[in-house]
Amino acid sequence: MDLDEALELWERKLSDAGCLKPTETEVISVDDSLSRITAEPVFAELSSPFYNAAAMDGIAVRFQDTLGASEATPVKLRLNSQFEWLNTGNALPKEFNAVIMVEDVQPIDSSTVEIITPVTPWKHVRTIGEDIVTTELILPGGHRIRPIDLGAMLATGLTEITVRKIPSALVIPTGSELVQPGDPLRPGNIIEFNSRVLSGYLTEWGLHAERSDIVTDKPDSLKKAIRAAVAKHDFVIVNAGASAGTRDHTAGVIADLGEIVLHGVNIRPGKPVILGIVNNKPVIGLPGYTISAVITLNLFVKKLADFLQGTQSPPSRMLEATLARPLPSKLGVQEYIRVKLGKVGNIMTATPAGRGAGAVMSMVQADGFLTVAANSEGIGAGEKVRVKLLRDEYEIENTLVFIGSHDNILDILANLLHRQRPICRLSSAHVGSMGGILAIKRGEAHLAGTHLLDEETGTYNISFIKKFLPGIPLQLINLTYREQGLLVAKGNPLKIKGFEDLAREELRFINRQRGAGTRLLTDMHLNRLGINPEQVSGYDREEYTHMNVASAVASTNADTGLAIRAAAVALDLDFIPVAEERYDLILPKTFLDDPKVIALLQIIKENQEFHQIVNSLGGYDLRDCGKIMYEQ
Amino acid sequence: MDLDEALELWERKLSDAGCLKPTETEVISVDDSLSRITAEPVFAELSSPFYNAAAMDGIAVRFQDTLGASEATPVKLRLNSQFEWLNTGNALPKEFNAVIMVEDVQPIDSSTVEIITPVTPWKHVRTIGEDIVTTELILPGGHRIRPIDLGAMLATGLTEITVRKIPSALVIPTGSELVQPGDPLRPGNIIEFNSRVLSGYLTEWGLHAERSDIVTDKPDSLKKAIRAAVAKHDFVIVNAGASAGTRDHTAGVIADLGEIVLHGVNIRPGKPVILGIVNNKPVIGLPGYTISAVITLNLFVKKLADFLQGTQSPPSRMLEATLARPLPSKLGVQEYIRVKLGKVGNIMTATPAGRGAGAVMSMVQADGFLTVAANSEGIGAGEKVRVKLLRDEYEIENTLVFIGSHDNILDILANLLHRQRPICRLSSAHVGSMGGILAIKRGEAHLAGTHLLDEETGTYNISFIKKFLPGIPLQLINLTYREQGLLVAKGNPLKIKGFEDLAREELRFINRQRGAGTRLLTDMHLNRLGINPEQVSGYDREEYTHMNVASAVASTNADTGLAIRAAAVALDLDFIPVAEERYDLILPKTFLDDPKVIALLQIIKENQEFHQIVNSLGGYDLRDCGKIMYEQ
Repeated sequence: MDLDEALELWERKLSDAGCLKPTETEVISVDDSLSRITAEPVFAELSSPFYNAAAMDGIAVRFQDTLGASEATPVKLRLNSQFEWLNTGNALPKEFNAVIMVEDVQPIDSSTVEIITPVTPWKHVRTIGEDIVTTELILPGGHRIRPIDLGAMLATGLTEITVRKIPSALVIPTGSELVQPGDPLRPGNIIEFNSRVLSGYLTEWGLHAERSDIVTDKPDSLKKAIRAAVAKHDFVIVNAGASAGTRDHTAGVIADLGEIVLHGVNIRPGKPVILGIVNNKPVIGLPGYTISAVITLNLFVKKLADFLQGTQSPPSRMLEATLARPLPSKLGVQEYIRVKLGKVGNIMTATPAGRGAGAVMSMVQADGFLTVAANSEGIGAGEKVRVKLLRDEYEIENTLVFIGSHDNILDILANLLHRQRPICRLSSAHVGSMGGILAIKRGEAHLAGTHLLDEETGTYNISFIKKFLPGIPLQLINLTYREQGLLVAKGNPLKIKGFEDLAREELRFINRQRGAGTRLLTDMHLNRLGINPEQVSGYDREEYTHMNVASAVASTNADTGLAIRAAAVALDLDFIPVAEERYDLILPKTFLDDPKVIALLQIIKENQEFHQIVNSLGGYDLRDCGKIMYEQ
Repeated sequence: MDLDEALELWERKLSDAGCLKPTETEVISVDDSLSRITAEPVFAELSSPFYNAAAMDGIAVRFQDTLGASEATPVKLRLNSQFEWLNTGNALPKEFNAVIMVEDVQPIDSSTVEIITPVTPWKHVRTIGEDIVTTELILPGGHRIRPIDLGAMLATGLTEITVRKIPSALVIPTGSELVQPGDPLRPGNIIEFNSRVLSGYLTEWGLHAERSDIVTDKPDSLKKAIRAAVAKHDFVIVNAGASAGTRDHTAGVIADLGEIVLHGVNIRPGKPVILGIVNNKPVIGLPGYTISAVITLNLFVKKLADFLQGTQSPPSRMLEATLARPLPSKLGVQEYIRVKLGKVGNIMTATPAGRGAGAVMSMVQADGFLTVAANSEGIGAGEKVRVKLLRDEYEIENTLVFIGSHDNILDILANLLHRQRPICRLSSAHVGSMGGILAIKRGEAHLAGTHLLDEETGTYNISFIKKFLPGIPLQLINLTYREQGLLVAKGNPLKIKGFEDLAREELRFINRQRGAGTRLLTDMHLNRLGINPEQVSGYDREEYTHMNVASAVASTNADTGLAIRAAAVALDLDFIPVAEERYDLILPKTFLDDPKVIALLQIIKENQEFHQIVNSLGGYDLRDCGKIMYEQ
């Protein structure tokens, strides 16, 4: 079923079942009501002010007594009979009807003052009800109470208020493969964190979200759990493990207990969502993959959460951006694509991030989502797209965009930058050295990282800049020298000595992606040795970072791969040095005045902590760190 | 001292005293960490996935066994030795290196399957570390933890996390005139609600805010309270009562205990703020008026709250609008002006709201603030202004703008509209019938309310529309007929019979503002009776609503005034009927398709509850409610 149809059906069925009405009301103390939702209009019990109050420090007078006062004919007033001293906020005595500011009063003796200007009636008096009159409306029903609203209610004599009960939801994680965080793990186990993520969103939406224990793959257990849950909560979320078996249980059990409204919707990720109603309570079976679960939670539960609270959330903020890379999409399915956003100069660029439904980190790092309609085969590079924001726009505008070769130092820079300027982030996309150079050319990055060796001249980076970035004023700043080498299991059980071993038939190599400097380094060495890539088993298997190469070797998914020493040190692998190479940053001069860039360069050049941490990683040499190697 | 100078001095002094650093750290369970701030970068303890996981339901195979498979030459695989069934998320057995989707598998018998396509190595396998590799960065330090971040931490084996302790603040209300909400009140008492408002904002900024008991106007009590507070909290707010005496105590006590950094800043409201440091803890004396206190809290405390948390809040959202009315401002003082915003057609209009520092309701109703610089004498009508938003922009865009004559029914309409469409608000500005007509002419309102009697023809509103709104296609829709009359104290002690009594010298009248239909009605009657306004004591005293007139009479600040019967009923006053008048709504036809307008008209025409409530107020007759009285 298509999404629009599914949403309409779901809302209609929920409405028919009476699920789309606000929760019951409860009376609570105004002191406890911050962020709660008013259930009814709120009216003033008292006027504010509830007495005629002096709005200034000065004297209370009768305006009639001040008529005719002037510099030439000052008027004398007698204490008690004609005036009284008072401070701001004091009650105006019944016999007076105006206040004269203390600055305009000339004391003559302890019981006489003189004034030289007459006052009008009720001057400098906050009369009864000036701010609000008893019985008037303070707040409408369905209003989320803000700090200032507390003041308005208390000021008008209210101490209690009728609010909506906080809707209550239960998240039930199901699946025999699930284990609680911290419990011992075996391969095939899945750490049960989805219920924490889902209840986190429900909490942010204003709900009271509980998590149940893990329910194993027995239909009876799930049935019992759902039956108990709908009796106690306003709605129930069942989060199936990722396996087909578990998913089927959920649908079957909901069908047994009540009604399945819908099973499966034409979106990706999120297809296997199950929408049901049991005892007039919504029961939603969310897919096991985290991203799928979060997307379907937003699509099918957020509006329900609004209805239960009697509010209506503003839609997510949108932002227009230019798509950096072509984005193919499957015809007939509405796709949700995580993107990173970067504002470089005046251009906001959206770069698609990981698409795997299990890739939690890609959502941690994402700045937004874009939607590709079911009737689209994709979006071309350079096209305008509308992105639904996951972060504040201001944060995105304060993000330094790094594109290029991956190095572990980038995370260290990101941390130090963020600590110094908490609003700044360093967003790094690892697309290889050539990718970085092309991003600079297209104006999509503030900075690129590159380590491309020109075999003919034996120099790094400069000839590539001259060739691909002619006429762009820029600086080439050294970040580090670093050791590249072959990573092998601890103790080097396969006795790998160098690139010559890659031709050995039984060796499983893991390569880097096209355009990566490290891939070019591999190719150069193979070429020198006369080894044909086809002879290298695993040459076609590509990873995007040094750490992923190290991970493949550490997990014995591969026997060796080329990466920097820091990656070997991090995962406790042996390291066979192959080359020292230079890793530089390309910085267009137009960004030299950007405060983010200035802050970053300062860390690179001067920050002792940065130098200490990098040196502790292994394989780095900072002898030229921060030095301008070339400029144009 | 000017604001910029004050802010700079304050930040420098706080920095010197070591107050601008984040709080200590603490280790908490990841399960409890939503919305907390990371104190350090967070690294993965496990890779995710931590085993090679099937990404699809299907069979695990060795890719080598599948080579050469095609429709013409299918390949048969044997259970256990050549394949194993698995579900998404299951661990790939060590001996296999790829997964074939169940859809591509043809079972032959219980231990044999056939395939017709070869697979590449690691196809449909989420290899170890695909999402994140152990030791890699998950979150930077100084990051506010979101629901998805919980997932990333737990998925990578973390169960505990180091976060910043929540900064703690104490709000001390001082002043002998203060009483706790709900306690008995005498004139001159001020209900102590500021500490609730201030701690509400601190809570929304992520702090732990406590409130102390009320401290009376004794310097020793305040000294004791501040000394105890700085020993326990990260900073202290002293909220003086509005009276001069109390204010002086605060400054004196802070000076005794530590250092006064600044007393008084050149802004309005908010001038009498006191900034001090006691035992290296910030102690801030905020003014007694709520609006002043909230403005200075934002100016002098928000950034401190950020520093203590190690974060940096995005600046408030700004919006450009056109100023509806001229805004004079005192030269030499930076002014903060509350405004209401309304989007009518494509024009966003800002209308200055109440300026009194004590007017809590004006801030409840305000949509934003604008700043008038110290060196400006004001801003002209029609000029563009930048407004700092107090509400979501979407909410402002969904606000129906009503300008015109005041009637109590408007609040009822506002409530019913908001209940039906929680995102919609009805914002009403009470500027009198003529003000409403002119607002329609300038395109600043969707709707105007008017009850102008043309004495010559005896008809309502139409002749004014023809004169002031020629050529604007509009409908004139009746809202109600209502009784106007003189409001007098219960029992009518002064024996007022009608307008003829207004000439009595001892009577204190309360009038409505120029342009109000009710004022014109008064003038018409006085004119008919040959009474000169100068004969009417209080003719110059103006209120803007029926309820404020009623309040003046109820509080004995005035003896009589002209208002609708509903206002007399609300405040239990006697009512001397003078006229039945027609109250109509002017609706330009261009807004007839606006969903907000449609919803409102539906309530007016069809909503039973609306009719019931209005009838219960007294003095209304809905015989023509919703009827089009005229159109052009």
